[in-house]
Amino acid sequence: MADCQGDVACDLTPMQLYEKLNLQGDQVRVLKSEKAAKAEIDAAVQLLLKLKVHYKTITGQEYKAGCPPTDDISSCSNGPATEDGDDQVDPWNVSTTSAKGVDYDKLIVRFGSSKIDQELIDRIGRIIEQTPHRFLRRGVFFSHRDMHQVLDAYENKKSFFLYTGRGPSSEAMHVGHLIPFIFTKWLQDVFNVPLVIQMTDDEKYLWKDLTQEQCYRFAVENAKDIIACGFDVNKTFIFSDLDYMGMSSSFYRNVVKIQKHVTFNQVKGIFGFTDSDCIGKISFPAIQAAPSFSSSFPQIFNSRTDLQCLIPCAIDQDPYFRMTRDVAPRVGYPKPALLHSTFFPALQGAQTKMSASDPNSSIFLTDTPKQIKTKVNKHAFSGGKDTVEEHRKYGGNPDVDVSFMYLTFFLEDDEQLEKIRQDYTSGALLTGDLKKCLIETLQPMIASHQERRKQVTDDMVKQFMTPRKLDFDF
Amino acid sequence: MADCQGDVACDLTPMQLYEKLNLQGDQVRVLKSEKAAKAEIDAAVQLLLKLKVHYKTITGQEYKAGCPPTDDISSCSNGPATEDGDDQVDPWNVSTTSAKGVDYDKLIVRFGSSKIDQELIDRIGRIIEQTPHRFLRRGVFFSHRDMHQVLDAYENKKSFFLYTGRGPSSEAMHVGHLIPFIFTKWLQDVFNVPLVIQMTDDEKYLWKDLTQEQCYRFAVENAKDIIACGFDVNKTFIFSDLDYMGMSSSFYRNVVKIQKHVTFNQVKGIFGFTDSDCIGKISFPAIQAAPSFSSSFPQIFNSRTDLQCLIPCAIDQDPYFRMTRDVAPRVGYPKPALLHSTFFPALQGAQTKMSASDPNSSIFLTDTPKQIKTKVNKHAFSGGKDTVEEHRKYGGNPDVDVSFMYLTFFLEDDEQLEKIRQDYTSGALLTGDLKKCLIETLQPMIASHQERRKQVTDDMVKQFMTPRKLDFDF
Repeated sequence: MADCQGDVACDLTPMQLYEKLNLQGDQVRVLKSEKAAKAEIDAAVQLLLKLKVHYKTITGQEYKAGCPPTDDISSCSNGPATEDGDDQVDPWNVSTTSAKGVDYDKLIVRFGSSKIDQELIDRIGRIIEQTPHRFLRRGVFFSHRDMHQVLDAYENKKSFFLYTGRGPSSEAMHVGHLIPFIFTKWLQDVFNVPLVIQMTDDEKYLWKDLTQEQCYRFAVENAKDIIACGFDVNKTFIFSDLDYMGMSSSFYRNVVKIQKHVTFNQVKGIFGFTDSDCIGKISFPAIQAAPSFSSSFPQIFNSRTDLQCLIPCAIDQDPYFRMTRDVAPRVGYPKPALLHSTFFPALQGAQTKMSASDPNSSIFLTDTPKQIKTKVNKHAFSGGKDTVEEHRKYGGNPDVDVSFMYLTFFLEDDEQLEKIRQDYTSGALLTGDLKKCLIETLQPMIASHQERRKQVTDDMVKQFMTPRKLDFDF
Repeated sequence: MADCQGDVACDLTPMQLYEKLNLQGDQVRVLKSEKAAKAEIDAAVQLLLKLKVHYKTITGQEYKAGCPPTDDISSCSNGPATEDGDDQVDPWNVSTTSAKGVDYDKLIVRFGSSKIDQELIDRIGRIIEQTPHRFLRRGVFFSHRDMHQVLDAYENKKSFFLYTGRGPSSEAMHVGHLIPFIFTKWLQDVFNVPLVIQMTDDEKYLWKDLTQEQCYRFAVENAKDIIACGFDVNKTFIFSDLDYMGMSSSFYRNVVKIQKHVTFNQVKGIFGFTDSDCIGKISFPAIQAAPSFSSSFPQIFNSRTDLQCLIPCAIDQDPYFRMTRDVAPRVGYPKPALLHSTFFPALQGAQTKMSASDPNSSIFLTDTPKQIKTKVNKHAFSGGKDTVEEHRKYGGNPDVDVSFMYLTFFLEDDEQLEKIRQDYTSGALLTGDLKKCLIETLQPMIASHQERRKQVTDDMVKQFMTPRKLDFDF
């Protein structure tokens, strides 16, 4: 959300400006209802009018509350705020008509975030004195907010904590779900920082036709898969909202603090909520926002309220944290910084995210080597030509080939990946060979995950999920 | 809210029917969005249409979402749902233009509750084998929901628990604030039942320009005044929301359960919230609802989820519990029963409630005997005539006389009160004499309250506010 304070000419995206207008409208209403001084009301109205003019200038549309900016104003129907041509990206829906997937450069402009460019990647490499993670090298994490500030502070011996999460909607996690955790574990290792992981079982209860008991059980089961990623128990706290809310009045106090500073107009604009939504959904964003503030975990951080938070997450979670960053200065806390990842494509193609509810759209963490082989061979969308002859002659298209995309996520060797790309493009490498390469990458990866998960005991889960002081050196 | 299930012809008030229509509209939207079976959607739409026709029949107005039934449809402006002619009664506003105060019989019809009639009062007397409290004898508690059911069960050895509360908006409590607590203590004594008292410090933080620290401090200070009313520590749990939410995940689980079953449309209809309200206010009603369910206090009630709750409160709190009673069967809990009190009039007259923010509108629990005397003599609205001669000749009007009203609250002796009423009406008793009688009633009452409050130690407060098993025999 808008970081500038009242300067109409500052560099805002249409969505930021829209959200600023919602806020300013609320502000005017509050001042009027509180019978504030006339001068104060006049100033607020003046700013509102200026913002409206500016909005019209950059969007070509009249500002209308409850109606976020879109490419086509006629399509406005109180829907999610993130429609952009054919790409839809919000915490509950991701879809696009392009086989290459969502247009991420466009998303950066629309969300008002910054691109993770080569300079930033190089800077991270220099600071940690290691090769940056392949997810950075290959643009899987492609966008950020305030990462340079985090690094500036880190170089001045002011550290940070990591926060990420998962919505436990079923027992079955697929490889796409591992992306943020693989990357977060790497960040924890190279920066040597503490980490909190939120399991939003309350959210899943509110959104899905599930009982609280089911959602909580999924949270605990999913925690085992997360622990199997190799997190350091001395630096990691995993929590279920349904549990932790009843364990720490500091968490609830921050939730209420955030809820006081966000209006229904704002969540309507940001998340597309309607009047028919239950009040649990409407107030939930504050619960996902609260762990961004270190004071939500007094046991972990010795009651410090000023620690910087860095959130690695998929870009569809950004709306929560735009809201959080807008609220932060108003409640006296630092804004969280972010690292955004692209989506992990479904086997059927990059038009949509993997879905835990369609077993053939995903490679699950419980799949056998045989299931992996069958799924890749049968369902992975191919960028190859129809016949071997044509393929040899014209070559394949790795940009839409799901097997190749998966290899960019999981094959560590840059040179090998580049060679595959070239050979597939030239036609030297056939689709069958490419799929074989992916199968041979996934099979041992999933098998060793299963091995590590087997070793996760109930006691270990309990240890990770107990609020306690974590190792950190701030 | 509507207790009948789909029977359009059943006996609903306009407000209940309006709320049922909101619910049914939500239901249709949910079915459509979930792509339910056509037959199911059709049935839901049919019921919606029937309800709309019925609404038009009994109100003479078209049903309109966000626009509760009023005497004059043109006045609809998304305001609180409880406008009725000139009386406004909701949790944040009580006002009327009548010097006799709010028309409580009209309120019973509008809210769809039941009158506490002589039969019910006599029944209570028979069961407890004592004279019913003066608040019952004199109509201070005038309305109820399901009290006969509570008594039926009680006679069959199935007991209940009491729940009441206070919004701690300042350190200063006035005598009006004591009414529910005086009556609740009496109920606790005569029925020998456990009691939970909610201090809504989170609500006050959300609604007022106060910090959480201030609201919490007011909660603790107010708890001392409440304890001074004489509650049995072995049967009473007092809790601050800001604290208790972080002490019991059962409380949060019930809050989320309620929040899943209430839409923004409903709270808009019931409480008059608007799109500019913060999401904390919008979701707060679930927090006041949750203590109605015994499962919110597993430590107190041995994890039992089926205990009947009885809520003594002022009638302005009823909207919260209409909502609660609507949700209860849908989450598998018993509906709370209620006993509603009238409002305690301001010294200036019964047009409005006492206000803690205007020191001259109230007798505070900290007032000295001298302050009490001055306030009553100077500010208590009189029903007497302008001159002694006229008064002797025509008599005074006790129905609008605030001193007489106060005596109906605090003078125990029925015969003495009746004699005062007769003498004042005839003109035999002058306003000065009446005021003297009130002063002599209030001074010792307040002094002994102050004496008892002095004896309330921090340790005692801590004891009352610690979640623990209470004495009960269910």
